Amino acid sequence: MPLRTSFAQMNCSFARAIDVIGDPWTLLVLRECFLGVERFEGFMQALGLARNVLADRLQALVAEGVLEKLPVEGHARHHAYRLTEKGEALLPAMVALMQWGDVWISGAGAEPILAVGPDGAPLAPVGLRRANGRPLRPQDVRFAAGPGAEALTRGHLAQLQAQGRK
Amino acid sequence: MPLRTSFAQMNCSFARAIDVIGDPWTLLVLRECFLGVERFEGFMQALGLARNVLADRLQALVAEGVLEKLPVEGHARHHAYRLTEKGEALLPAMVALMQWGDVWISGAGAEPILAVGPDGAPLAPVGLRRANGRPLRPQDVRFAAGPGAEALTRGHLAQLQAQGRK
Repeated sequence: MPLRTSFAQMNCSFARAIDVIGDPWTLLVLRECFLGVERFEGFMQALGLARNVLADRLQALVAEGVLEKLPVEGHARHHAYRLTEKGEALLPAMVALMQWGDVWISGAGAEPILAVGPDGAPLAPVGLRRANGRPLRPQDVRFAAGPGAEALTRGHLAQLQAQGRK
Repeated sequence: MPLRTSFAQMNCSFARAIDVIGDPWTLLVLRECFLGVERFEGFMQALGLARNVLADRLQALVAEGVLEKLPVEGHARHHAYRLTEKGEALLPAMVALMQWGDVWISGAGAEPILAVGPDGAPLAPVGLRRANGRPLRPQDVRFAAGPGAEALTRGHLAQLQAQGRK
Protein backbone atom coordinates (compact mmCIF):
# COMPACT_ATOMS: atom_id res chain seq x y z
CA MET A 1 0.00 0.00 0.00
CA PRO A 2 1.68 3.22 -1.12
CA LEU A 3 -0.29 5.23 1.45
CA ARG A 4 1.24 3.35 4.34
CA THR A 5 4.72 3.63 2.86
CA SER A 6 4.50 7.41 2.63
CA PHE A 7 3.32 7.67 6.25
CA ALA A 8 6.19 5.53 7.48
CA GLN A 9 8.66 7.87 5.83
CA MET A 10 7.26 11.00 7.45
CA ASN A 11 9.42 12.76 10.03
CA CYS A 12 6.76 12.27 12.70
CA SER A 13 6.22 9.52 15.27
CA PHE A 14 2.45 10.05 15.08
CA ALA A 15 2.44 9.40 11.32
CA ARG A 16 4.74 6.41 11.80
CA ALA A 17 2.39 5.01 14.44
CA ILE A 18 -0.58 5.54 12.11
CA ASP A 19 1.31 3.66 9.42
CA VAL A 20 1.42 0.63 11.72
CA ILE A 21 -1.98 0.73 13.41
CA GLY A 22 -4.03 3.58 11.90
CA ASP A 23 -6.24 1.44 9.70
CA PRO A 24 -9.82 1.08 11.01
CA TRP A 25 -9.89 -2.74 10.87
CA THR A 26 -6.42 -2.95 12.40
CA LEU A 27 -7.62 -0.85 15.32
CA LEU A 28 -10.61 -3.13 15.85
CA VAL A 29 -8.40 -6.24 15.68
CA LEU A 30 -6.25 -4.65 18.40
CA ARG A 31 -9.36 -3.93 20.48
CA GLU A 32 -10.18 -7.64 20.38
CA CYS A 33 -6.59 -8.52 21.36
CA PHE A 34 -6.93 -6.33 24.45
CA LEU A 35 -10.29 -7.94 25.24
CA GLY A 36 -8.51 -11.32 25.21
CA VAL A 37 -9.24 -12.77 21.77
CA GLU A 38 -6.29 -14.83 20.50
CA ARG A 39 -7.50 -17.11 17.70
CA PHE A 40 -8.30 -16.43 14.06
CA GLU A 41 -11.85 -17.79 14.43
CA GLY A 42 -12.32 -15.68 17.56
CA PHE A 43 -11.51 -12.51 15.62
CA MET A 44 -13.81 -13.66 12.83
CA GLN A 45 -16.66 -14.24 15.24
CA ALA A 46 -16.19 -10.93 17.04
CA LEU A 47 -15.66 -8.70 14.01
CA GLY A 48 -17.40 -10.43 11.11
CA LEU A 49 -14.92 -9.12 8.59
CA ALA A 50 -13.64 -10.86 5.44
CA ARG A 51 -11.13 -13.65 6.12
CA ASN A 52 -8.53 -12.17 3.77
CA VAL A 53 -8.82 -8.75 5.44
CA LEU A 54 -8.30 -10.30 8.87
CA ALA A 55 -5.38 -12.43 7.66
CA ASP A 56 -3.77 -9.34 6.11
CA ARG A 57 -4.13 -7.25 9.28
CA LEU A 58 -2.86 -10.02 11.59
CA GLN A 59 0.12 -10.68 9.33
CA ALA A 60 1.00 -6.97 9.26
CA LEU A 61 0.76 -6.68 13.05
CA VAL A 62 3.04 -9.71 13.48
CA ALA A 63 5.50 -8.27 10.94
CA GLU A 64 5.56 -4.99 12.89
CA GLY A 65 6.16 -6.79 16.19
CA VAL A 66 2.86 -5.65 17.71
CA LEU A 67 1.53 -9.23 17.90
CA GLU A 68 3.35 -12.55 18.14
CA LYS A 69 2.07 -15.70 16.49
CA LEU A 70 2.44 -18.71 18.76
CA PRO A 71 1.70 -22.41 18.26
CA VAL A 72 -1.25 -23.78 20.24
CA GLU A 73 -0.30 -26.82 22.30
CA GLY A 74 -1.85 -29.98 20.91
CA HIS A 75 -3.09 -28.25 17.75
CA ALA A 76 -0.36 -28.52 15.14
CA ARG A 77 -2.01 -26.19 12.64
CA HIS A 78 -3.53 -23.69 15.05
CA HIS A 79 -1.98 -20.46 16.24
CA ALA A 80 -2.64 -17.85 18.90
CA TYR A 81 -1.98 -14.15 18.39
CA ARG A 82 -0.81 -12.34 21.49
CA LEU A 83 0.18 -8.75 22.14
CA THR A 84 3.92 -8.20 22.53
CA GLU A 85 5.32 -5.59 24.91
CA LYS A 86 5.21 -3.18 21.97
CA GLY A 87 1.55 -4.06 21.49
CA GLU A 88 0.64 -3.79 25.18
CA ALA A 89 2.16 -0.31 25.15
CA LEU A 90 -0.65 0.84 22.86
CA LEU A 91 -3.22 0.51 25.63
CA PRO A 92 -3.05 4.10 26.96
CA ALA A 93 -3.75 5.47 23.46
CA MET A 94 -6.58 3.00 22.94
CA VAL A 95 -8.21 3.60 26.32
CA ALA A 96 -7.92 7.36 25.75
CA LEU A 97 -9.73 6.97 22.43
CA MET A 98 -12.43 4.76 23.94
CA GLN A 99 -12.96 7.25 26.77
CA TRP A 100 -13.24 10.05 24.20
CA GLY A 101 -15.94 8.03 22.45
CA ASP A 102 -17.65 7.44 25.82
CA VAL A 103 -17.81 11.15 26.59
CA TRP A 104 -18.47 12.61 23.15
CA ILE A 105 -20.39 9.90 21.28
CA SER A 106 -21.92 7.25 23.55
CA GLY A 107 -22.43 9.73 26.40
CA ALA A 108 -21.95 9.43 30.17
CA GLY A 109 -24.04 6.65 31.65
CA ALA A 110 -24.22 4.80 28.33
CA GLU A 111 -20.66 3.44 28.10
CA PRO A 112 -20.79 0.01 26.36
CA ILE A 113 -17.46 -1.23 27.76
CA LEU A 114 -15.45 0.07 30.72
CA ALA A 115 -11.72 -0.24 31.28
CA VAL A 116 -11.36 -1.17 34.95
CA GLY A 117 -8.56 -1.84 37.41
CA PRO A 118 -7.98 -5.05 39.38
CA ASP A 119 -10.58 -3.81 41.91
CA GLY A 120 -13.23 -3.51 39.19
CA ALA A 121 -13.44 0.28 39.44
CA PRO A 122 -13.33 2.24 36.16
CA LEU A 123 -9.98 3.85 35.35
CA ALA A 124 -9.47 7.58 35.70
CA PRO A 125 -9.80 9.54 32.44
CA VAL A 126 -6.49 9.39 30.56
CA GLY A 127 -5.00 12.86 30.74
CA LEU A 128 -1.85 14.83 29.98
CA ARG A 129 0.69 15.64 32.66
CA ARG A 130 3.85 17.67 32.98
CA ALA A 131 7.12 15.86 33.58
CA ASN A 132 6.58 16.42 37.32
CA GLY A 133 3.23 14.62 37.17
CA ARG A 134 0.97 17.67 37.44
CA PRO A 135 -2.10 17.54 35.14
CA LEU A 136 -2.11 19.79 32.10
CA ARG A 137 -5.04 21.02 30.01
CA PRO A 138 -4.96 20.27 26.25
CA GLN A 139 -4.84 23.99 25.43
CA ASP A 140 -1.62 24.38 27.47
CA VAL A 141 0.28 21.83 25.39
CA ARG A 142 2.70 23.07 22.73
CA PHE A 143 4.79 21.22 20.15
CA ALA A 144 8.52 21.69 19.69
CA ALA A 145 11.17 20.23 17.41
CA GLY A 146 12.72 17.13 18.98
CA PRO A 147 16.24 15.72 18.55
CA GLY A 148 15.07 13.75 15.50
CA ALA A 149 13.49 16.70 13.69
CA GLU A 150 14.54 17.19 10.07
CA ALA A 151 14.91 20.64 8.51
CA LEU A 152 11.43 20.52 6.96
CA THR A 153 9.84 19.71 10.33
CA ARG A 154 11.77 22.50 12.06
CA GLY A 155 10.69 24.93 9.34
CA HIS A 156 7.05 23.89 9.60
CA LEU A 157 7.01 24.33 13.39
CA ALA A 158 8.87 27.65 13.19
CA GLN A 159 6.48 28.96 10.56
CA LEU A 160 3.44 28.09 12.68
CA GLN A 161 5.02 29.67 15.74
CA ALA A 162 5.75 32.85 13.76
CA GLN A 163 2.08 32.99 12.79
CA GLY A 164 1.24 33.18 16.46
CA ARG A 165 -0.18 29.69 16.65
CA LYS A 166 0.96 27.05 19.08
CA MET B 1 -18.80 4.82 3.08
CA PRO B 2 -20.44 1.60 4.36
CA LEU B 3 -17.35 0.77 6.43
CA ARG B 4 -17.72 3.89 8.54
CA THR B 5 -21.44 3.36 8.94
CA SER B 6 -20.99 -0.14 10.33
CA PHE B 7 -18.39 1.09 12.84
CA ALA B 8 -20.70 3.84 14.05
CA GLN B 9 -23.40 1.28 14.79
CA MET B 10 -21.14 -0.94 16.88
CA ASN B 11 -21.86 -1.16 20.62
CA CYS B 12 -18.39 0.18 21.43
CA SER B 13 -17.12 3.71 22.04
CA PHE B 14 -13.74 2.77 20.58
CA ALA B 15 -15.35 1.69 17.28
CA ARG B 16 -17.52 4.81 17.31
CA ALA B 17 -14.46 6.98 17.84
CA ILE B 18 -12.66 5.19 14.98
CA ASP B 19 -15.68 5.85 12.79
CA VAL B 20 -15.15 9.59 13.33
CA ILE B 21 -11.36 9.91 13.32
CA GLY B 22 -9.83 6.49 12.51
CA ASP B 23 -8.97 7.22 8.91
CA PRO B 24 -5.22 7.75 8.32
CA TRP B 25 -5.60 11.09 6.51
CA THR B 26 -8.14 12.30 9.07
CA LEU B 27 -5.63 11.59 11.82
CA LEU B 28 -2.93 13.56 10.00
CA VAL B 29 -5.33 16.46 9.41
CA LEU B 30 -5.99 16.46 13.17
CA ARG B 31 -2.26 16.42 13.85
CA GLU B 32 -1.92 19.60 11.82
CA CYS B 33 -4.86 21.18 13.68
CA PHE B 34 -3.05 20.56 16.96
CA LEU B 35 0.16 22.01 15.51
CA GLY B 36 -1.81 25.16 14.73
CA VAL B 37 -2.72 24.90 11.04
CA GLU B 38 -6.12 26.46 10.33
CA ARG B 39 -6.39 27.15 6.62
CA PHE B 40 -7.11 24.85 3.67
CA GLU B 41 -3.89 25.87 1.92
CA GLY B 42 -1.96 25.32 5.14
CA PHE B 43 -3.16 21.71 5.33
CA MET B 44 -2.35 21.28 1.62
CA GLN B 45 1.18 22.59 2.13
CA ALA B 46 1.82 20.45 5.22
CA LEU B 47 0.32 17.19 4.00
CA GLY B 48 0.53 17.29 0.21
CA LEU B 49 -2.64 15.26 -0.21
CA ALA B 50 -5.25 15.57 -2.96
CA ARG B 51 -7.53 18.61 -2.61
CA ASN B 52 -10.71 16.52 -2.76
CA VAL B 53 -9.41 14.16 -0.05
CA LEU B 54 -8.62 17.11 2.22
CA ALA B 55 -11.98 18.77 1.52
CA ASP B 56 -13.77 15.51 2.31
CA ARG B 57 -11.93 14.99 5.61
CA LEU B 58 -12.40 18.60 6.76
CA GLN B 59 -16.11 18.51 5.90
CA ALA B 60 -16.56 15.24 7.83
CA LEU B 61 -14.74 16.63 10.89
CA VAL B 62 -16.92 19.74 10.82
CA ALA B 63 -20.06 17.59 10.45
CA GLU B 64 -18.97 15.53 13.47
CA GLY B 65 -18.35 18.64 15.56
CA VAL B 66 -14.61 17.98 15.92
CA LEU B 67 -13.69 21.12 13.94
CA GLU B 68 -15.58 24.35 13.43
CA LYS B 69 -15.40 26.32 10.19
CA LEU B 70 -15.12 30.04 10.82
CA PRO B 71 -15.02 33.04 8.48
CA VAL B 72 -11.67 34.84 8.25
CA GLU B 73 -11.98 38.55 8.93
CA GLY B 74 -11.47 40.63 5.79
CA HIS B 75 -11.49 37.58 3.50
CA ALA B 76 -15.07 36.93 2.46
CA ARG B 77 -14.36 33.59 0.81
CA HIS B 78 -11.73 32.24 3.21
CA HIS B 79 -12.31 30.05 6.23
CA ALA B 80 -10.38 28.81 9.22
CA TYR B 81 -10.81 25.36 10.71
CA ARG B 82 -10.43 25.23 14.48
CA LEU B 83 -10.70 22.42 16.99
CA THR B 84 -13.86 22.49 19.09
CA GLU B 85 -13.89 21.35 22.72
CA LYS B 86 -14.73 17.88 21.39
CA GLY B 87 -11.72 18.10 19.10
CA GLU B 88 -9.35 19.38 21.80
CA ALA B 89 -10.39 16.43 23.94
CA LEU B 90 -8.67 14.10 21.44
CA LEU B 91 -5.23 15.37 22.46
CA PRO B 92 -4.47 12.75 25.17
CA ALA B 93 -5.14 9.92 22.69
CA MET B 94 -3.04 11.60 20.02
CA VAL B 95 -0.10 12.40 22.31
CA ALA B 96 -0.23 8.81 23.63
CA LEU B 97 0.00 7.51 20.07
CA MET B 98 2.85 9.89 19.19
CA GLN B 99 4.74 8.86 22.33
CA TRP B 100 4.23 5.20 21.40
CA GLY B 101 5.75 5.96 18.00
CA ASP B 102 8.63 7.79 19.71
CA VAL B 103 9.47 4.80 21.91
CA TRP B 104 8.78 1.92 19.53
CA ILE B 105 9.48 3.32 16.06
CA SER B 106 11.53 6.53 16.06
CA GLY B 107 13.41 5.53 19.22
CA ALA B 108 14.51 7.51 22.28
CA GLY B 109 16.73 10.44 21.39
CA ALA B 110 15.33 10.59 17.85
CA GLU B 111 11.87 12.08 18.53
CA PRO B 112 10.93 14.34 15.58
CA ILE B 113 8.36 16.40 17.53
CA LEU B 114 7.90 16.76 21.28
CA ALA B 115 4.71 17.65 23.13
CA VAL B 116 5.81 20.13 25.79
CA GLY B 117 4.22 22.07 28.62
CA PRO B 118 4.21 25.88 29.04
CA ASP B 119 7.72 25.62 30.52
CA GLY B 120 9.02 23.88 27.39
CA ALA B 121 9.69 20.58 29.18
CA PRO B 122 8.43 17.42 27.45
CA LEU B 123 5.23 15.96 28.91
CA ALA B 124 5.29 12.84 31.03
CA PRO B 125 4.42 9.62 29.16
CA VAL B 126 0.64 9.26 28.96
CA GLY B 127 -0.29 6.39 31.24
CA LEU B 128 -3.25 4.63 32.79
CA ARG B 129 -4.37 5.35 36.35
CA ARG B 130 -6.90 3.99 38.79
CA ALA B 131 -9.79 6.21 39.82
CA ASN B 132 -7.69 7.29 42.84
CA GLY B 133 -4.89 8.49 40.55
CA ARG B 134 -2.43 5.67 41.17
CA PRO B 135 -0.61 4.46 38.01
CA LEU B 136 -1.63 1.11 36.56
CA ARG B 137 0.29 -1.23 34.23
CA PRO B 138 -1.41 -2.21 30.94
CA GLN B 139 -1.48 -5.88 31.98
CA ASP B 140 -3.53 -5.00 35.10
CA VAL B 141 -6.35 -3.43 33.09
CA ARG B 142 -9.51 -5.47 32.50
CA PHE B 143 -12.66 -4.75 30.50
CA ALA B 144 -16.17 -4.97 31.88
CA ALA B 145 -19.64 -4.41 30.49
CA GLY B 146 -20.72 -0.80 31.02
CA PRO B 147 -24.22 0.62 31.52
CA GLY B 148 -24.63 0.93 27.74
CA ALA B 149 -23.63 -2.67 26.95
CA GLU B 150 -26.03 -4.58 24.71
CA ALA B 151 -26.67 -8.31 25.14
CA LEU B 152 -24.18 -9.25 22.40
CA THR B 153 -21.43 -7.19 24.08
CA ARG B 154 -22.18 -8.73 27.49
CA GLY B 155 -22.09 -12.19 25.95
CA HIS B 156 -18.78 -11.53 24.20
CA LEU B 157 -17.14 -10.26 27.39
CA ALA B 158 -18.58 -13.12 29.48
CA GLN B 159 -17.37 -15.70 26.96
CA LEU B 160 -13.82 -14.29 27.03
CA GLN B 161 -13.84 -14.17 30.81
CA ALA B 162 -14.99 -17.82 30.96
CA GLN B 163 -12.03 -18.72 28.72
CA GLY B 164 -9.74 -17.35 31.37
CA ARG B 165 -8.72 -14.33 29.35
CA LYS B 166 -9.01 -10.78 30.61
